[in-house]
Amino acid sequence: MTGQPLGIHLIADLDGCTRLDDLSAVEAALRAAVEAAGVHLIGLKLHHFGPGQGVTGVALLAESHISIHTWPERAFAAVDIFVCAGEAQARRGLEALVAHLSPTAQRVTAIPRGPP
Amino acid sequence: MTGQPLGIHLIADLDGCTRLDDLSAVEAALRAAVEAAGVHLIGLKLHHFGPGQGVTGVALLAESHISIHTWPERAFAAVDIFVCAGEAQARRGLEALVAHLSPTAQRVTAIPRGPP
Repeated sequence: MTGQPLGIHLIADLDGCTRLDDLSAVEAALRAAVEAAGVHLIGLKLHHFGPGQGVTGVALLAESHISIHTWPERAFAAVDIFVCAGEAQARRGLEALVAHLSPTAQRVTAIPRGPP
Repeated sequence: MTGQPLGIHLIADLDGCTRLDDLSAVEAALRAAVEAAGVHLIGLKLHHFGPGQGVTGVALLAESHISIHTWPERAFAAVDIFVCAGEAQARRGLEALVAHLSPTAQRVTAIPRGPP
């Protein structure tokens, strides 16, 4: 990519999280990420696989999307934050999500997105 | 990651695509990817930013998600396919999307997802 990328895509694997089977807690985490990133929500869709099971959700943004998929039985959440805005905004969104899910460890990959 | 990953996440930047301002074409590409990957659709959400402008969409899956964001003015589409299924299924989904969007070039990164 020779010019400025269109956006940044953060891929975050979060271990040792709590409340991953709680639909309202996961929704709150997703909404907090949207607000902290300062991006514009187009639509939010969440699905709970059942009592004690995982939650999957995505926030569709004017600036792309934020998603979360949880495995409470492994205390694991897979998050991605793709925003066509500065990397600082994406990082603030991730920090807000992390503050809600309290992981004990995280692995984050940042991928610039856009035409060459 | 010591064990088998929970899933595979393909991050694909597609250049030289056609029909990226066409909501129904983008929806067809997304649905074709879901079908080719053999995954289960929970919900589909698309948004068109206006005539001649981009489309953004996401398919929420029982196996995670597939998203697409388009910039017709740059003939560019950003796709991600995260499926908790085999990498072969994710690749088949991407191939179906590519067949619909006809990029002249693509850059694909594959990221295994899951707890360590």
